[in-house]
Amino acid sequence: ENTATKKYTIAVIPGDGIGKEVTPWAQKALEKAAEGVAEFAYESFDLGAERYLRDGSILPEDEEERIKKTDAILLGAVGDPRIKAGILERGLLLKLRFDLDQYVNLRPSKLYKGVTSPLANPGDIDFVVVREGTEGLYCGAGGAVRRNTPNEVATEVSINTAYGVERVVRYAFKLAMKRRKHITLVHKKNVLVNAGDMWQRIVDKVGEEYPEVTHDYSHIDAATIFLVSAPSKFDVILTDNLFGDILTDEAGAVVGGVGYSASGCINASDEYPSMFEPIHGSAPDIAGQNKANPTAAILSAAMLLEHLGFDEAAQRIHKAVEADIEELGSTVRTTDQVGKDILARM
Amino acid sequence: ENTATKKYTIAVIPGDGIGKEVTPWAQKALEKAAEGVAEFAYESFDLGAERYLRDGSILPEDEEERIKKTDAILLGAVGDPRIKAGILERGLLLKLRFDLDQYVNLRPSKLYKGVTSPLANPGDIDFVVVREGTEGLYCGAGGAVRRNTPNEVATEVSINTAYGVERVVRYAFKLAMKRRKHITLVHKKNVLVNAGDMWQRIVDKVGEEYPEVTHDYSHIDAATIFLVSAPSKFDVILTDNLFGDILTDEAGAVVGGVGYSASGCINASDEYPSMFEPIHGSAPDIAGQNKANPTAAILSAAMLLEHLGFDEAAQRIHKAVEADIEELGSTVRTTDQVGKDILARM
Ligand SMILES: CC(C)[C@H](C(=O)O)[C@@H](O)C(=O)O
Ligand SMILES: CC(C)[C@H](C(=O)O)[C@@H](O)C(=O)O
Repeated sequence: ENTATKKYTIAVIPGDGIGKEVTPWAQKALEKAAEGVAEFAYESFDLGAERYLRDGSILPEDEEERIKKTDAILLGAVGDPRIKAGILERGLLLKLRFDLDQYVNLRPSKLYKGVTSPLANPGDIDFVVVREGTEGLYCGAGGAVRRNTPNEVATEVSINTAYGVERVVRYAFKLAMKRRKHITLVHKKNVLVNAGDMWQRIVDKVGEEYPEVTHDYSHIDAATIFLVSAPSKFDVILTDNLFGDILTDEAGAVVGGVGYSASGCINASDEYPSMFEPIHGSAPDIAGQNKANPTAAILSAAMLLEHLGFDEAAQRIHKAVEADIEELGSTVRTTDQVGKDILARM
Repeated sequence: ENTATKKYTIAVIPGDGIGKEVTPWAQKALEKAAEGVAEFAYESFDLGAERYLRDGSILPEDEEERIKKTDAILLGAVGDPRIKAGILERGLLLKLRFDLDQYVNLRPSKLYKGVTSPLANPGDIDFVVVREGTEGLYCGAGGAVRRNTPNEVATEVSINTAYGVERVVRYAFKLAMKRRKHITLVHKKNVLVNAGDMWQRIVDKVGEEYPEVTHDYSHIDAATIFLVSAPSKFDVILTDNLFGDILTDEAGAVVGGVGYSASGCINASDEYPSMFEPIHGSAPDIAGQNKANPTAAILSAAMLLEHLGFDEAAQRIHKAVEADIEELGSTVRTTDQVGKDILARM
């Protein structure tokens, strides 16, 4: 009799604001979905604003080393108005994405039955944004001279490598093969000619290996129009770190709110864990009020399960979420109530 | 008897694609609106794709010198799929914006009565984006090494100066004083910490001189959400060159299409002319078919008149456009028909 279930260690980083309220529900959903299939041990990390204000640490080396040894990460949200913008984001969230070589930031957008889109005629929205995760304007290159004087000059440098671009392009083509086989590259190649030209050349080159996949191109400004005027035309959107950040928030709005949008930061090898998080932020305005929708966090647990190969367990979450939204999506409920309702359906 | 009317020279650059179809209507509207108030002489410039394909020139020095001597510029659109992305945009459109020190790119967004917004509940949309026009990622800094090899690295550099930021911030505060007295700074200061921090500091500093004007801040990703979920909350949006490009296209979509959105590139002194253009592009897919909506181009003529101080003449255009849209906005008409209809109301 083979009753062996696989064992995994999951790092849990609730982080700040509503991250602390929604992450426990992601963990509970994960646990329940995996019953009898996988065994999870959890290691919680007290990282984020409170910790920083308490002892000044953002991501101590030994804790990062422990995170690196886990099999996957569940993250809530990072950011707090009491702390200067950028400190936690760059010191914790982006540091993890970069140090753990999370080359793909995978962000599906789907309009669920039962959710009201702000668009009058949204159509059938179901696309995935493949956002590059380790380069571009996010690499922290740049600086300033003569700060606080009338002669101050501040720079931000976007660094893009063929190595980094090609691997995420390959990921997008493989993903497109499992979907409707269409990729839209989004960039601003008429202005950012160096990076844009490289992205386009690499897409063209890799595209030759995937004759069944069609690909077209849209400038970032035009893409923000299409997300509003014709979002159902997209299948896989492939783009860089900054444009992906912008488009996925707009996409979240278009599918009825970022409360339904999860994301995965996928590690490029199996050396380090991948990280799963809702795309929403810490939402300090509603934090601590049991108001935040935990659905996106719960969906990030489903992405984690898929990533580890537990498709059926992931489906349990997806089905429960779909049923919950269809029946109760327009009802105002507390964080805990939504969590309980979804769990009850699993 | 004083019958003297003021005389001005207007440079007309129809450019590419639908630019050639809509610009004549902007010119006709300008002419008609200014009857008896100002006298315009026009100097047409054959610049854009056709010219480039014919003789390889993009913006010859002597022609730029002639443009610099005019009082204002009416521009159509620049860009052609036969020509590698960036050549005309950077060599002609952006070169004019930069060489003519057009520090403010002013982009009003208004939902006209009679236009159907793609949003189910758009509310009362009436805001202006003040986009910086001469810095940021648009300055053309950056390059590539090992092009076309697996080791290629491509960079794009955003250069931001206190000088350039402060003058556009001051413009925004002055504008806010004439409006609903609220500014939203949009940036990504949690990631682009050098430039973002400088923008915020300068807004805070200048804001002290305008105690009546309130200002808040939104990350660019969150701003794309608000444009869809609560666009009526904005009055003046103040942002950098790239974020302004992105937000104004999304804003155009939200107010029912970029066919209604005009813009002005405002020169920082009176040394060089300011430039007025629709925010839409050359739209090669519908070019030459008498399909493009000339309303945005006609509205850019109104902005030109306002800029030269002819508010009443500008109002003639605004009133005609408003009446036309209210009555016929949802009717499919040719470019020429819309142009004639608007002219007939002036
Ligand atoms: C918090 C911030 C640094 C982050 C980003 O810009 O990537 C967030 O907006 C996101 O999209 O995950
Ligand atoms: C054509 C392009 C260079 C231009 C820009 O990015 O500024 C256009 O999109 C605009 O918004 O006027």
